[in-house]
Amino acid sequence: MLLLTPHDTQLGSNLSAMLDQVQQRFSAELLSDTACVNNLVDHVERYRGKMLRPTLVIVSAMAAGEREDLGELRGPVLTVAAVCEMVHMATLVHDDVLDDAQVRRRGATINQLRGNETAVMLGDYLISHAYHLCSSIGRTDISRAVAHATNTVCEGELLQLSNRHNLDLEERVYFEIIRRKTAALCGLCCELPVRLRHPGAEANGDQRLAQSLFAYGEKLGIAFQIVDDILDLSGDEHTVGKSVARDLAKGKLTLPVIRHLQQADTAEREVVAGLLARAAEEGLDDSAAQQIAHTVADRVTDSGAMDYARQWARRLVDQATEEVLSAIKPSPARDLMQAMAGAVIDRRF
Amino acid sequence: MLLLTPHDTQLGSNLSAMLDQVQQRFSAELLSDTACVNNLVDHVERYRGKMLRPTLVIVSAMAAGEREDLGELRGPVLTVAAVCEMVHMATLVHDDVLDDAQVRRRGATINQLRGNETAVMLGDYLISHAYHLCSSIGRTDISRAVAHATNTVCEGELLQLSNRHNLDLEERVYFEIIRRKTAALCGLCCELPVRLRHPGAEANGDQRLAQSLFAYGEKLGIAFQIVDDILDLSGDEHTVGKSVARDLAKGKLTLPVIRHLQQADTAEREVVAGLLARAAEEGLDDSAAQQIAHTVADRVTDSGAMDYARQWARRLVDQATEEVLSAIKPSPARDLMQAMAGAVIDRRF
Repeated sequence: MLLLTPHDTQLGSNLSAMLDQVQQRFSAELLSDTACVNNLVDHVERYRGKMLRPTLVIVSAMAAGEREDLGELRGPVLTVAAVCEMVHMATLVHDDVLDDAQVRRRGATINQLRGNETAVMLGDYLISHAYHLCSSIGRTDISRAVAHATNTVCEGELLQLSNRHNLDLEERVYFEIIRRKTAALCGLCCELPVRLRHPGAEANGDQRLAQSLFAYGEKLGIAFQIVDDILDLSGDEHTVGKSVARDLAKGKLTLPVIRHLQQADTAEREVVAGLLARAAEEGLDDSAAQQIAHTVADRVTDSGAMDYARQWARRLVDQATEEVLSAIKPSPARDLMQAMAGAVIDRRF
Repeated sequence: MLLLTPHDTQLGSNLSAMLDQVQQRFSAELLSDTACVNNLVDHVERYRGKMLRPTLVIVSAMAAGEREDLGELRGPVLTVAAVCEMVHMATLVHDDVLDDAQVRRRGATINQLRGNETAVMLGDYLISHAYHLCSSIGRTDISRAVAHATNTVCEGELLQLSNRHNLDLEERVYFEIIRRKTAALCGLCCELPVRLRHPGAEANGDQRLAQSLFAYGEKLGIAFQIVDDILDLSGDEHTVGKSVARDLAKGKLTLPVIRHLQQADTAEREVVAGLLARAAEEGLDDSAAQQIAHTVADRVTDSGAMDYARQWARRLVDQATEEVLSAIKPSPARDLMQAMAGAVIDRRF
């Protein structure tokens, strides 16, 4: 995402400086008096990549507040940006346990290096510190909004787990899963800066602005997850930079596969069901899983279901863009929000 | 613990009614709009046993406030009691994943029934709702204190994980581990009611009372964990009601074993090291692990190291009792705090 904001623009250099401060808050919060904890946190900090969520917080704050230095909201905005990144990191660490993933950002995952037990506890440490840092803002309505979003994320993950190997999974349920597990946090990121301007429930006139920013983040998040799911099915580890074919290995049906199964005749359904069963076999190695995924991806592409999923992502990005265009005055920050939405579609990793 | 509070005393019937309300707040908070989540929560609610932590909150509030109906603090006290129980339940669910435990409160664990992935996410759901419920009190200092305690719990667990199979683990580090992973939350339970009386940092004259109550809970918590570790080594699943011999299976050294190894000659150290290595072998079944644990327990008893651990627990319970006697005026609630400390030593499950 940072590629979109060249340092030679005022907006780009402001954003870059603020993301550095978010990183500092992130690291300062996680510092422990025990060396073993600090070593683990150092490893997690290497996962940091696009910083999509802090960027959403900061850019939404700029666009909604119509000033690029954020004024007196600068402190709290940077803190909630660090909180959202910490929540996201916690979900990555626990997701890698759930997915048996071995590679993340081209390095070994915590579960691969140190075992599932340590990864579970490190994720807990991150989520605990996210709430701890959030409480430093001194606003229980903000703490409550963050906790509400994490409640929703967990429900999405549990809903997905309860639908593993369900070949009849409906599109409607798939969208509900990703709305909760991915998009709820992106929506929160965009909405929090407006909430920060008004203590308690006194949002008043800004209610509509908060709703539009939430909708932008939510739609962008759903599109992001659809593209993520496409990359898991059809990408390779080298390009994507993390373990792929994990959805099939874990029996998670995603949009292209759901659509393909819906449209397929009985014979094709049986072929794909057989491939999915093989991909989910215990002890299958990564390259075998990836090979099966690519076979499935080819069939899904031929039937048009891959394009169908991409069209969904594109439609959601268009809707996200409309939300900001209708609710926010023109500014370089608003332009960046549009560009970020577009980048979700074009990403290859 | 409830055995200590017969319903025919005023205190006992007050406490019992309030614990019912804590249960109601607990269940109401966890209600989801997805059936799969509610099914999991129903299962977790069966884990509820002694309700030690909510009892600590309520009885500390009674003893510190010198009134058994809790007055205007009743609402917030019952809410933080539910929060502390929810945090505790989350740690149980994740602990069972860490320990590969199959039995809890005489029933199957979530990880045993539904797999590690679901158990990890359900623990996350519980912890997220704990913070969500806590924010409803409208006091960021209370949210911060709870998050600080959970930071500490995670550090304790990570410190323990980083010392697995460390035969040279020092007593000092063992105490540091259990102070963090178990006692920090018990200390918080006892201290929170005093904090609730004073918004922000204005504890003033109650500072000493809050410190004494924290110390009572912390010392009781350390003693509780020592006894838990003794039961894991020497108890059987039927009596204890949960999987035993998990510490040895997971390479966790506890006080009786640490003391025994410290005192042993080279030959005895080698024998015990051999037993510990066998107990931690992959794929060992539960009864074999328990048999090894009992062999170790016999040697540890013969050397006096088991008594040494019990004496530590007794000394901490005595210190906990002194804390409340010195800081709190005589009352039935104070008597109950003393009795609860004593019960930690005598428990067999």
